[in-house]
Amino acid sequence: MGRDWEGIEAIFNPGSVAVIGASDNPGKLGFHVMKSLIQGRYTGKIYPVNPGKDHILGIKTYPSLFQVPDTVDLSIIVLPAEQVPRILKECSEKNVKGIVLITAGFKEIEDRRGETLQIEITELASRSGMRIIGPNTFGIVNLHLPLNASFTPEFSWLEKGGISLVSQSGGMSHLMAFLSLQDGVGFSKIVGLGNRCNVDFAEMVEYLLQDDQTKVIALYMEGIDSPKKLMKVAKKGNREKPILVYKVGRSSTGDKASQFHTGSLAGKHEIYEGAFRQARILTVGSSEELLDTAKALATCPFPGGAKVAVLSGQAGPGMAACDVCEMQGLSIPPFSTETQKRVDELLPPLAIRTNPVDMGPAWYDAEAIKGIVQAVLEDKRIDAVILCLMFASANRSAVGALADLLSERRTNKPILCCFSSPPGIWEDEIKRLEGSGIPNYPTPERAAKALVNLCRLKKIRE
Amino acid sequence: MGRDWEGIEAIFNPGSVAVIGASDNPGKLGFHVMKSLIQGRYTGKIYPVNPGKDHILGIKTYPSLFQVPDTVDLSIIVLPAEQVPRILKECSEKNVKGIVLITAGFKEIEDRRGETLQIEITELASRSGMRIIGPNTFGIVNLHLPLNASFTPEFSWLEKGGISLVSQSGGMSHLMAFLSLQDGVGFSKIVGLGNRCNVDFAEMVEYLLQDDQTKVIALYMEGIDSPKKLMKVAKKGNREKPILVYKVGRSSTGDKASQFHTGSLAGKHEIYEGAFRQARILTVGSSEELLDTAKALATCPFPGGAKVAVLSGQAGPGMAACDVCEMQGLSIPPFSTETQKRVDELLPPLAIRTNPVDMGPAWYDAEAIKGIVQAVLEDKRIDAVILCLMFASANRSAVGALADLLSERRTNKPILCCFSSPPGIWEDEIKRLEGSGIPNYPTPERAAKALVNLCRLKKIRE
Repeated sequence: MGRDWEGIEAIFNPGSVAVIGASDNPGKLGFHVMKSLIQGRYTGKIYPVNPGKDHILGIKTYPSLFQVPDTVDLSIIVLPAEQVPRILKECSEKNVKGIVLITAGFKEIEDRRGETLQIEITELASRSGMRIIGPNTFGIVNLHLPLNASFTPEFSWLEKGGISLVSQSGGMSHLMAFLSLQDGVGFSKIVGLGNRCNVDFAEMVEYLLQDDQTKVIALYMEGIDSPKKLMKVAKKGNREKPILVYKVGRSSTGDKASQFHTGSLAGKHEIYEGAFRQARILTVGSSEELLDTAKALATCPFPGGAKVAVLSGQAGPGMAACDVCEMQGLSIPPFSTETQKRVDELLPPLAIRTNPVDMGPAWYDAEAIKGIVQAVLEDKRIDAVILCLMFASANRSAVGALADLLSERRTNKPILCCFSSPPGIWEDEIKRLEGSGIPNYPTPERAAKALVNLCRLKKIRE
Repeated sequence: MGRDWEGIEAIFNPGSVAVIGASDNPGKLGFHVMKSLIQGRYTGKIYPVNPGKDHILGIKTYPSLFQVPDTVDLSIIVLPAEQVPRILKECSEKNVKGIVLITAGFKEIEDRRGETLQIEITELASRSGMRIIGPNTFGIVNLHLPLNASFTPEFSWLEKGGISLVSQSGGMSHLMAFLSLQDGVGFSKIVGLGNRCNVDFAEMVEYLLQDDQTKVIALYMEGIDSPKKLMKVAKKGNREKPILVYKVGRSSTGDKASQFHTGSLAGKHEIYEGAFRQARILTVGSSEELLDTAKALATCPFPGGAKVAVLSGQAGPGMAACDVCEMQGLSIPPFSTETQKRVDELLPPLAIRTNPVDMGPAWYDAEAIKGIVQAVLEDKRIDAVILCLMFASANRSAVGALADLLSERRTNKPILCCFSSPPGIWEDEIKRLEGSGIPNYPTPERAAKALVNLCRLKKIRE
């Protein structure tokens, strides 16, 4: 790690954190930040700063940063905007290198004083070598440390994983975090860029490309000032690590709103799309698709080609998966003669036995299922497998057997599943599957779309 | 209700049900059907039929249908295919009018004897005036009676509501049922058509059009033999009741599989699309979209036009909703001067105050939020409203206040929401909202898409 990352490292892996504006009043953000640090099980030192309190949430509190009897790596600031320049000077004198500046009221407001203030703090930070996430951000989360430096304690409920999300919207970060709780997606870092005073997409992508705990970089973007810098950084590093982006502002009103909100040049979605493709960044079209695709990229190998086998417990979901695959450029080819022979031997002539295979009549016969899946995985004509099974009382044990088989598999072909059941059923089995690198999706269409995106990204990386 | 519905009524609202092939062995479907009836709290008479048992799951069991000391309205049959003709003759003699024929092994299998058997039972049924759902079906559910005449007891977990789903795939019915448990969608009836021996889409749609407990008819289709009959029925009745369809087989392999699976003419998706449009049936593109749209249709009024206001708690989700709306033909127009003035008065100049409105800075001020929403609802330039709010600890009480306001609203404009929170938070508030006719969606894009579909259907009905 080069000298360059000192400030960013102080933000994501601090040994000590000061909360400037800490509070024990639940109506204040300084209270929620304290809760996030504590409930997030941060094991470094926490120093609340508030001149009016001795203790906050049981933790000794200091009247000012200068009274803190220790070095401070990261300051989380929640004081009103007009106090921020003074606080940043104090941080600089105290040799704090990382800042999470939650305070709003800078470049994003109509009043021109906001912009002036942002210029002032940016200059202050650059003179002293401090890195600032924000202003106007919910904060950051590093689930691997763990560190929840945000005003949302519930971020600590998330699963630890390989996806890092860099987002220009706090709302979208919260949305995707809550979706991930349902869909079993694990995060490494979540970063709310806010007004991007001196940490923008380019800096974050460059940092995350060399971060061992990040396997996939997911971006939510409204508009940026220096696209070239990002594209250059991405192009350099993303053969090793997949980068994908969900950019809004594709419509005229969305675009205008994005210019207002981020105070930056949005506009011209086509230009962005072309630049992303050149920089080998995969574009997706919705928050769900961003998460679904990131999940596939974090767990699956890339397929060798675009030839897909669809194996389903019931015919309908298999057809739905085929539709998505084929309409988006993948193929559902016939099996090799040998594979077809093995499938025919294992499956009674009650169902579709060619690709897509309706394995319905074999769900009571774990050995048959195992044989079919194994044969198809070994077929050289097949690059990837989609497996669908909808729960019915009578097939309750099927996913367990399948999870056993698949976790022992010897294949480097991606397998994506849609195993669907009422809440509380199959949860352990699906966790086991996902733990062994097989992502599960709530619908066959979403599993298929994730596979389509694996293939798309593979292609633009070539 | 005309004489015509006697058989169908016997299936959906029977006073007594026989289970032919009832079992107490969890390895048999006859066991799961018994569990479905009992756990589904069916209050009519249940008559298990099995020559080897006195009681099954505590219920007196009869050696044959003739021994049942009562009339039987509905027979659920789970015996092997070759026994079905004999059983149907017995049902006819016993004057049973409704049949749910779960047994597989008819037209859908490769062996030609399956088809012969299906012709035989179809003729048998038509001679005796019996209506058969199936063969090769999971069954049917009527959540209003309640009656769970399927092999999946978990269907009884579903919420009662206004959507009836008619499906050519058991797998898709299960999928959508399980999705509905997460997304708060309520069902009236779920029907697995199976091989459609003498009840097809046309009969079911005609029946559901006159069924008071059905507000929306959702179809999952692979392929049908007599599209004209369905289109005629739909065209006649669907100005009063919305009908929407998710048809697979849009790709060549999906289409081929659908021909195999349903033994019917699939093919030529474009022809279907045109026919659906002419019959004023809305087509959708995925299982999630079918449910999301049905939910909007079951709860919301149709918008007067395509002009949408997007009000969000955080800017990003609002932009995502705008993108979907505008890319699909809706508009996000400026407010009237009067509305804009009211919004400007209520919202500090810290955020976007034109449409889409970022209400972020006002979340602590319930009166301001109330005022903004009310002003926008009253704006004659606005036909529909999308409301988005992502949970953060500090805005926890916002959705409760909004639910109060919206449940008292006096407007016939559709309001669609995306209120997103970690599991366990806002669940009661969202239930309250949905109870007052305001559907909630997991993402802003899905809320917007549901609104797009409301507008699309309104247009094709005109």
